[in-house]
Amino acid sequence: MPLTRITLNDQTSEARIAQISDILHRTLVETFDVPAHDRFQIVEKLPAAQRIYDPHYLSGRRSDDFILFTLLAGKPRSAAQKSAFYRTLTQRLAAQLAVRPDDVMVVIQFNTAGDWSFSKGEIFVGETL
Amino acid sequence: MPLTRITLNDQTSEARIAQISDILHRTLVETFDVPAHDRFQIVEKLPAAQRIYDPHYLSGRRSDDFILFTLLAGKPRSAAQKSAFYRTLTQRLAAQLAVRPDDVMVVIQFNTAGDWSFSKGEIFVGETL
Amino acid sequence: MPLTRITLNDQTSEARIAQISDILHRTLVETFDVPAHDRFQIVEKLPAAQRIYDPHYLSGRRSDDFILFTLLAGKPRSAAQKSAFYRTLTQRLAAQLAVRPDDVMVVIQFNTAGDWSFSKGEIFVGETL
Repeated sequence: MPLTRITLNDQTSEARIAQISDILHRTLVETFDVPAHDRFQIVEKLPAAQRIYDPHYLSGRRSDDFILFTLLAGKPRSAAQKSAFYRTLTQRLAAQLAVRPDDVMVVIQFNTAGDWSFSKGEIFVGETL
Repeated sequence: MPLTRITLNDQTSEARIAQISDILHRTLVETFDVPAHDRFQIVEKLPAAQRIYDPHYLSGRRSDDFILFTLLAGKPRSAAQKSAFYRTLTQRLAAQLAVRPDDVMVVIQFNTAGDWSFSKGEIFVGETL
Repeated sequence: MPLTRITLNDQTSEARIAQISDILHRTLVETFDVPAHDRFQIVEKLPAAQRIYDPHYLSGRRSDDFILFTLLAGKPRSAAQKSAFYRTLTQRLAAQLAVRPDDVMVVIQFNTAGDWSFSKGEIFVGETL
């Protein structure tokens, strides 16, 4: 945990997806209290007709390169942690990959430690969350 | 917010997807206290083998044109708002697109305002929810 | 309810998907207090580059046949129910389909009865949950 779904343009290259994935993971580790090896991401590539969003709602202008990050995390985070994660992720995507900050949207959900089984049918007990 | 995932038959045309999207969005604005430009939808097209559902559980009969709407919303809604949304969405899909009411399923989840960053790495503060 | 998303290797055959689906559903009915006909599953097939996960975090070793089950359920379950579900699902996948227990991950979320409309625009009232 967390588990992140990254939804983006189906023209995005594998190399760029790997870069986005790396930036996301490093930012989670550094700002969101995520263990270094706790990395789980699903990448969903969709054509424009299947990614429907208002270009201007709380954004300067969303382009066809809009990226949506949807996270599920297993323990609470503070507003300060959320803010730092949003800000740092967006800044790094801009600085390192020229992703426009207007094109980055993030949504988080939370459940609890016992809602996760990482492998072998074992319930997660949470001490290393 | 909300963010809606629409999962449907991969034979659905782009024109029909656009119509379903419009009906969903108008219904959210009119029954679910959603701002007019707050529109975020992901459309997932899948073949029958990847959409597995009981044909009769709490439905007259689900066909291959079954549509599943999964929403994530950032503030609570009342049972009355949920009922109005379900009923109006299903009625409009039937009246305008001949979608069978037995083929419409809706599931909602909720998180909080601070769980959303719409763009620029800014945390959503919620006053215009 | 519940609604389960099964995310797996895009090389998985339709026959094997059907077997995984059957094992999941029977296990939910037997360990997770799910009605016999309450079956709703979405199968997401993705290439390796779109399924990104640490091979060793809380697992012996995840292979390219890693399977992620993400469930949304409409009423609470106890830790004992969750444990039994995780354990039984993983054991059956191993015994019947030779799925490696290190390759099985499960994550659960919960909402409430009124968050579901199974068909016809009717709000679910929950007595048969």
